[in-house]
Amino acid sequence: MGKGITSREENYSQWYNELVVKADLAENSAVRGSMVIKPYGYAIWEKMQAQLDKMFKETGHENAYFPLFIPKSFFSKEASHVDGFAKECAVVTHYRLKNDPNGKGVIVDEDAKLEEELIVRPTSETIIWSTYKNWIQSYRDLPILVNQWANVVRWEMRTRLFLRTAEFLWQEGHTAHATSDEALAETKQMINIYSEFAEKHMAMPVVIGRKSENERFAGALETFTIEALMQDGKALQSGTSHFLGQNFAKAFDVKFATKEGKEEYVWASSWGVSTRLMGALIMAHSDDKGLVLPPKLAPIQVAIVPIYKGEQQLEEISKKINVLVKDFRAKGISVKYDNRDTHKPGFKFAEYELKGVPVRIAIGPRDMANGTCEVARRDTLTKETVMQYDVVEYIEKLLEEIQENIYNKALNFRNNNIQEVNTFDEFKEAIEKGGFVSAHWDGTKETEIKIKDLTKATLRCIPLENKKEEGECILTGKPSKERVLFAKAY
Amino acid sequence: MGKGITSREENYSQWYNELVVKADLAENSAVRGSMVIKPYGYAIWEKMQAQLDKMFKETGHENAYFPLFIPKSFFSKEASHVDGFAKECAVVTHYRLKNDPNGKGVIVDEDAKLEEELIVRPTSETIIWSTYKNWIQSYRDLPILVNQWANVVRWEMRTRLFLRTAEFLWQEGHTAHATSDEALAETKQMINIYSEFAEKHMAMPVVIGRKSENERFAGALETFTIEALMQDGKALQSGTSHFLGQNFAKAFDVKFATKEGKEEYVWASSWGVSTRLMGALIMAHSDDKGLVLPPKLAPIQVAIVPIYKGEQQLEEISKKINVLVKDFRAKGISVKYDNRDTHKPGFKFAEYELKGVPVRIAIGPRDMANGTCEVARRDTLTKETVMQYDVVEYIEKLLEEIQENIYNKALNFRNNNIQEVNTFDEFKEAIEKGGFVSAHWDGTKETEIKIKDLTKATLRCIPLENKKEEGECILTGKPSKERVLFAKAY
Repeated sequence: MGKGITSREENYSQWYNELVVKADLAENSAVRGSMVIKPYGYAIWEKMQAQLDKMFKETGHENAYFPLFIPKSFFSKEASHVDGFAKECAVVTHYRLKNDPNGKGVIVDEDAKLEEELIVRPTSETIIWSTYKNWIQSYRDLPILVNQWANVVRWEMRTRLFLRTAEFLWQEGHTAHATSDEALAETKQMINIYSEFAEKHMAMPVVIGRKSENERFAGALETFTIEALMQDGKALQSGTSHFLGQNFAKAFDVKFATKEGKEEYVWASSWGVSTRLMGALIMAHSDDKGLVLPPKLAPIQVAIVPIYKGEQQLEEISKKINVLVKDFRAKGISVKYDNRDTHKPGFKFAEYELKGVPVRIAIGPRDMANGTCEVARRDTLTKETVMQYDVVEYIEKLLEEIQENIYNKALNFRNNNIQEVNTFDEFKEAIEKGGFVSAHWDGTKETEIKIKDLTKATLRCIPLENKKEEGECILTGKPSKERVLFAKAY
Repeated sequence: MGKGITSREENYSQWYNELVVKADLAENSAVRGSMVIKPYGYAIWEKMQAQLDKMFKETGHENAYFPLFIPKSFFSKEASHVDGFAKECAVVTHYRLKNDPNGKGVIVDEDAKLEEELIVRPTSETIIWSTYKNWIQSYRDLPILVNQWANVVRWEMRTRLFLRTAEFLWQEGHTAHATSDEALAETKQMINIYSEFAEKHMAMPVVIGRKSENERFAGALETFTIEALMQDGKALQSGTSHFLGQNFAKAFDVKFATKEGKEEYVWASSWGVSTRLMGALIMAHSDDKGLVLPPKLAPIQVAIVPIYKGEQQLEEISKKINVLVKDFRAKGISVKYDNRDTHKPGFKFAEYELKGVPVRIAIGPRDMANGTCEVARRDTLTKETVMQYDVVEYIEKLLEEIQENIYNKALNFRNNNIQEVNTFDEFKEAIEKGGFVSAHWDGTKETEIKIKDLTKATLRCIPLENKKEEGECILTGKPSKERVLFAKAY
């Protein structure tokens, strides 16, 4: 603690890795690719969960829980799903260990081999649709609006804390509907909820768009995404919502009797966000001094540090601070009074800067005499002197202002980093510079892949709020009806 | 729905299985031994989680998250732990599937074999203490008070929904302390929190006690338990808290520098409750008509059913009910207005009885004329006529009364089913009859196991609030200083 971290300019990637560890958010574990989410990091995730869960329930969703393990054969049932998913995953083959006859710990008991291997879920469409088959007989059983908070595993070769880990935490919504329109409306509703969450709570502007066929979820007819821009100019896919058509219903034979008495396959959506959002949150706002957290997701919104010499001064200051603490809590503001006598104020200041606490208050003997305190903002790193009697209401408003300021800063950055280009040379240059690149594309998978091979840029999305504009594909010159967004991405 | 379930007298075990499924709590999945927790069951679990999480946080604990997978070698590090745990568990041996060259779906890719197998956590002491090694250097880093909400897997041969499943959900607290006294105090604090939760929220009386050495957690010096009595006279271990001494600190070499500058091993506790509590809740209170839920854990506390003929009557009644719904919500009472026109009132009544909704209100045309409504209690199955203007306050009090009544009923049952015996013949007879059997025991593992072999009764606990009493062991006649509780158990 208190030790500096690498600056973003020096090495952005190292800055991120050091920040995650030094701010006590997460660390690598003894298991390759799996992270430990530390209490401070987990507290932020809990705040995200609570808000998302509320938004899901307000729109009629309920939580449930489905098995961690999926029979291997389930992955073969939906043809495109198996191509996209079933490969890099953890496979359970045995169900027992035994003592090593050589006395060297434990070994796998070969007599306890499973008849069919089990896959640790990389996503749950298959197991859930095999369950829905029993839940759905008639239109009266629809819609099913279910969400699951769970851990999932995708065996990744190159992992990074929060951004790409073998095991991660997420929520996955899985809904079943009587009509295509209703399923599609649900798919759109959920990407809008993700967008609202990202912008209002994470203070992170996002572009809502459709994925190209090439980037779609395995088994989906349409994938909507929210794409955010990080400070290094790379894009980060932050949440997706999939219109699955009748693909999984057909794979698991899930039919329903319509009001008119006909039998039809059920329509589906699925949608998810994960602990990857933690990575997005960190990279969107933080600076060379450490984390910058939007007040709405900060586990500690206000830290109070006493500045004193000797017991008596501390006692006097504490008396005042304890009153403030009560007043803050009465307003629902989370506050920490840091009266540790093992650390100096300067150390504590650096610690709260590193941990991104939005507001810090310091009160010393002179403040006591003047009835004032020093209020420091994490986002602007500015300080002000505020009267003690006024400070709770002052900070209540300040927290809103900080939330807004962090969002606007990120929004300006994003808007200043969308480059419109019209030739492939311009495109390459813009991609090298970083940011979103808005360009015409001929709509083919072939061109998309060629662009990726040549520039490492991927097609992030076809923005929903796109204006129609005739143009020519930057690579092939073929006609195009709208611009799409490219970027290098996490 | 609406179809009856087997009565408890006829077949208690079948009654339970049918109840869990028909009340929409959980069902078996396509994966042997793993359950699906359905939305209504999960909503009860969420209420349990929310209350427990609050109690943990109020006592200074924070949540964190540790990996699902544990390297096989970790289980060999704590000698007694490996004996108690590492055997029946899910083993991950590979990390990739590939397309079957014969075109028959997917097969395990033998090239993707892990160097060291990974075990799906059956409990997390080993992975967590390997992590704590890096978190703890000095007394300043202590205590660590961390809890984790997670899924765990123990490969069970005979499974039952909620009571014994291969995968289950739980919380596991893992704390680290500078002294033995502090760790022991934490262990006791947590069993007291579990007891308070069971009695105040689940309305389920429990006995707090110590486990005998034979029944202790693998790696613990002392295990405290809360034991509840089910309606069939069998005991159910509902939560445990373990004093682990320095065993895991020694196994993972976790030392700290004391204030005096000496190096010492860290002291530990761990404690957990699981979705097994759902089984306890169901079996403690429910009857032949279905679930009986204590109001504090009921997802729906009040269900309102309109009784009407035709649109106009429904509209009139709905106007009144919508006002009531608002008033209930303003008081924090969860209410459901069931205006489905696809089902008759009698069907709805049966459904809410089956699902254990504490209070049901029915309002028909005559009620509208008289300004009354019919209030039905689930616990006593009695009905009363209450004035509409009074009903919200009436039910607010009634919910408290129901909570208390359910608890007292279970308490009376429990107290009437503790039998004191002094000979082995009496013991055998009492065990056959069912309930807790309070008897003298000579304190040896040998006798305990012999008693189990002869009667299937296990030593549930040595109650903490035991009066000292000289006596003779029911089996060996050897001297004993206190009575202990035996029972057949889940």
